[in-house]
Amino acid sequence: MGTLQKLRRLFRWSLCPQYSTVLTAASKARSDRALIVCSWQFIQHHYVHSRGLGDRPANPSAAPPRSPFSRVTREDLSFFRKLLPGRTITDPDLLKSSNIDWLKTVQGHSEVLLRPKTTEEVSHILRYCNERNLAVCPQGGNTGLVGGSVPVFDEVILSTSLMNQVLTFDSISGILTCQAGCVLESLSQYVEEKDFIMPLDLGAKGSCHIGGNVATNAGGLRLLRYGSLRGTVLGLEVVLADGRVLNCLATLRKDNTGYDLKQLFIGSEGTLGVITAVSILCPRKPKAVNVAFLGCSSFQHLLETFQCCRGMLGEILSAFEFLDASCMKLVETHLKLTNPIRECDFYILIETAGSNATHDEEKLHNFLEEVMTSSLVTDGTVATEAAKIKALWSLRERVTEALTHDGYTYKYDISLPVEKIYDLVKDMRGHLGDMAKNVVGYGHVGDGNLHLNITSPSKDPALLAAIEPYVYEWTAEWKGSISAEHGLGLKKRNYIYYSKPSEAVALMGNIKAMLDPKGILNPYKTLPDQLH
Amino acid sequence: MGTLQKLRRLFRWSLCPQYSTVLTAASKARSDRALIVCSWQFIQHHYVHSRGLGDRPANPSAAPPRSPFSRVTREDLSFFRKLLPGRTITDPDLLKSSNIDWLKTVQGHSEVLLRPKTTEEVSHILRYCNERNLAVCPQGGNTGLVGGSVPVFDEVILSTSLMNQVLTFDSISGILTCQAGCVLESLSQYVEEKDFIMPLDLGAKGSCHIGGNVATNAGGLRLLRYGSLRGTVLGLEVVLADGRVLNCLATLRKDNTGYDLKQLFIGSEGTLGVITAVSILCPRKPKAVNVAFLGCSSFQHLLETFQCCRGMLGEILSAFEFLDASCMKLVETHLKLTNPIRECDFYILIETAGSNATHDEEKLHNFLEEVMTSSLVTDGTVATEAAKIKALWSLRERVTEALTHDGYTYKYDISLPVEKIYDLVKDMRGHLGDMAKNVVGYGHVGDGNLHLNITSPSKDPALLAAIEPYVYEWTAEWKGSISAEHGLGLKKRNYIYYSKPSEAVALMGNIKAMLDPKGILNPYKTLPDQLH
Repeated sequence: MGTLQKLRRLFRWSLCPQYSTVLTAASKARSDRALIVCSWQFIQHHYVHSRGLGDRPANPSAAPPRSPFSRVTREDLSFFRKLLPGRTITDPDLLKSSNIDWLKTVQGHSEVLLRPKTTEEVSHILRYCNERNLAVCPQGGNTGLVGGSVPVFDEVILSTSLMNQVLTFDSISGILTCQAGCVLESLSQYVEEKDFIMPLDLGAKGSCHIGGNVATNAGGLRLLRYGSLRGTVLGLEVVLADGRVLNCLATLRKDNTGYDLKQLFIGSEGTLGVITAVSILCPRKPKAVNVAFLGCSSFQHLLETFQCCRGMLGEILSAFEFLDASCMKLVETHLKLTNPIRECDFYILIETAGSNATHDEEKLHNFLEEVMTSSLVTDGTVATEAAKIKALWSLRERVTEALTHDGYTYKYDISLPVEKIYDLVKDMRGHLGDMAKNVVGYGHVGDGNLHLNITSPSKDPALLAAIEPYVYEWTAEWKGSISAEHGLGLKKRNYIYYSKPSEAVALMGNIKAMLDPKGILNPYKTLPDQLH
Repeated sequence: MGTLQKLRRLFRWSLCPQYSTVLTAASKARSDRALIVCSWQFIQHHYVHSRGLGDRPANPSAAPPRSPFSRVTREDLSFFRKLLPGRTITDPDLLKSSNIDWLKTVQGHSEVLLRPKTTEEVSHILRYCNERNLAVCPQGGNTGLVGGSVPVFDEVILSTSLMNQVLTFDSISGILTCQAGCVLESLSQYVEEKDFIMPLDLGAKGSCHIGGNVATNAGGLRLLRYGSLRGTVLGLEVVLADGRVLNCLATLRKDNTGYDLKQLFIGSEGTLGVITAVSILCPRKPKAVNVAFLGCSSFQHLLETFQCCRGMLGEILSAFEFLDASCMKLVETHLKLTNPIRECDFYILIETAGSNATHDEEKLHNFLEEVMTSSLVTDGTVATEAAKIKALWSLRERVTEALTHDGYTYKYDISLPVEKIYDLVKDMRGHLGDMAKNVVGYGHVGDGNLHLNITSPSKDPALLAAIEPYVYEWTAEWKGSISAEHGLGLKKRNYIYYSKPSEAVALMGNIKAMLDPKGILNPYKTLPDQLH
């Protein structure tokens, strides 16, 4: 069933008869578009009326009303202080950074931050909070981009920052087992010393926690080569809402004994349980790494370069990333980075990782000769030494940072068939005209994943109204995902129906109710306010 | 928590006080062993007493009593015939092969086999059966090895054999979408013509259905290179027990919009829903494939060869399989295959797949020189042309078939830390002595997955009693999995506690109850008879 059929089923006309004329009056060819518009109107309508805001339209990404959880009392604090002496933080200054997200777009008002060191402590905390009906916001490195990692109101913040111990590493199999609060970059350094690498890498590696990576099913820069966390995570230890510890911390590549429960927690953004430990399969450290930074004059040439690259670099291709000319201007302007090649419309970063430096260089050389000769690529540079590789990667990895200096940023993380990804950027530029300061596109070509970012001198409701639901409709029309890797968190929770049918969302609601009947775990996140 | 702790929690002494002396009398060093013995006695005790079999010990892999489902009536048959004219099979001769498993160890007595062609038909069937309280056994190619794909009693057999259409193939991304009943080998041929390959391959490829592969989370011969189906399956369409169609048939590499529901159905052996369509990511067809067949004089040398191989072949290594000398004798004796190299204790099959034939041959040559020079490998042969590659693969792939000619086969599919896998075979030989005809080991070294097979001239309860629970205790002791890739089905369902803690199994039970409240889908499979 296509997306439109899903929407059709979801927004049954009986639910919103006032819009039925939109459809019946429309021609068949236009009815699907009308349906999407209608579904949006339904969402808006629901928000306006159910929340009693009169005529003022509400924003589906804004916080819903606070649920009737208990409020933290002095008795609660004394319980926490007894359990976690010196690790129960109530100083408002110390709480500040945990109450606001990295983008500074979601601001909570929690009055207590707990820093357990052990699974048992997490279990005690959750059992207590569940009994007391206290809402809990699990927090890793707080680098999320959809408001999933900060409290919305006064939720107790449960930080994994002190759960940062490596538990075991098997240097034959490359299987690492560690606590959830280990910082990704620290783990990378740890396994690299043993001649392995982490199967994932992302811009936020210096702050993000492995538990948060797993809870959000982080994608990042190595997915093209090593696959998603659903394949590389071998085991999880999770504390459920009522404090029960679920030990699925296997260290086996294969295990078909019953349902694979750990998958429930991968990507559930802390709404089904708190991940306390992870076991993960690390690939061998490649003996040779090369990075090529290339320029193309059109996105079509970029796509042809990608096809050629997959054929000629094959098994050594480990990343194929892109940024457009606008992104390059941003990193030059705001971060003073230097474009190492001639100006052009699109920039590609290709990484190879292999076991034989001579073979890899030969493959890369043949590929570069092919794409230069055929004029697919207009200019390029290659790096083999670590410092230059890092510098080239910075151009791609620091786009997110550069955007924060450009103004208020509306961020979209879209999956589409790869040949469509840049059409959305161009279309959005035309659609917004002068309303936006910058409309830029970058991302993971190899995964069909576009990061569309739109900046504005300041927060601008009119601009937002022009972007949304347009961007979601566009994505649904092409059967894309409205969140490829960032998750839904607070901000995108109500847009889930653009990518998932109502039956699926209803089933997600059943799973939530089964595992967390009081709904204390990361409330207001992932699932929409209304389940149909 | 370790396996022993799990067992300790599971078999609380209060549940089986008659065994408590076993533990208290045992020394601390022996208490873990006693615990496992006790848990086994508890299982036996439970079976003997709860099933009213008096003193005759019951086998936990045998069928439990029939659950109180309805029996198929004339009215039911006329409903099915109207829905599926000519595709409602009741002729006992035609039903025969669907009522018995490939190993001829599980025999059901179903009187009706349904062969739907569309998802809508599957939906109608399940809605009807759920309302009528009729049990249903979904069946693909019926190549499973744990009695998961045949009825245990009179369940309606729902075959996917006519759901064999490719729906779409995207030759840019390599994403295939097809109905669940497509035969794996047909799909391989289909995508190979388009210069791609299926991400999985297994001995049963000529018969098994992709839907069954996904439902059982099949591993097979390419997992080392392309990872598990949890990463390569991008979308599923599933019909739930009550006939609702769950459309999660995405064709995107990345999609983090809510919980990843499709994971629930991967590996759930048809107990949570019937998979009707699959979308799967196919890798590019490698330009060069080489196979080396090598001999080693000890398993330690084999392991060292594996380590060396991972380093030197790196990204082009696509399989590292082994068989022992006993397996070689079986394929020589029963299938008249010829050993292409000198006799030795262990045989290795290494496959490389890459994008540059010259590079691959050079890597393979360097590796072979290294392992021959260091005497890790005693003899070997290499194939690059298709016919010889196929002949070498036959030696490994046809071990299963050879075993069926050797007598009644007790099959175990174990995951262990790779350095331990052959110890189990040696230990079992010593343990069984003359009781067994042959005790053989083969499997996927790269995945730490051993296929331990024990043959006997005929079914032998005394031999079985000597094998089990010994083999499961041994596996639990080393934190292995008692089913690496075959699943639990009927035969292994009650052994789940050797690899999963009781909290996890209880949660699996909750999931089953949520999705299939009447328990009509593939009853008596996957979950144990008793949930603690």
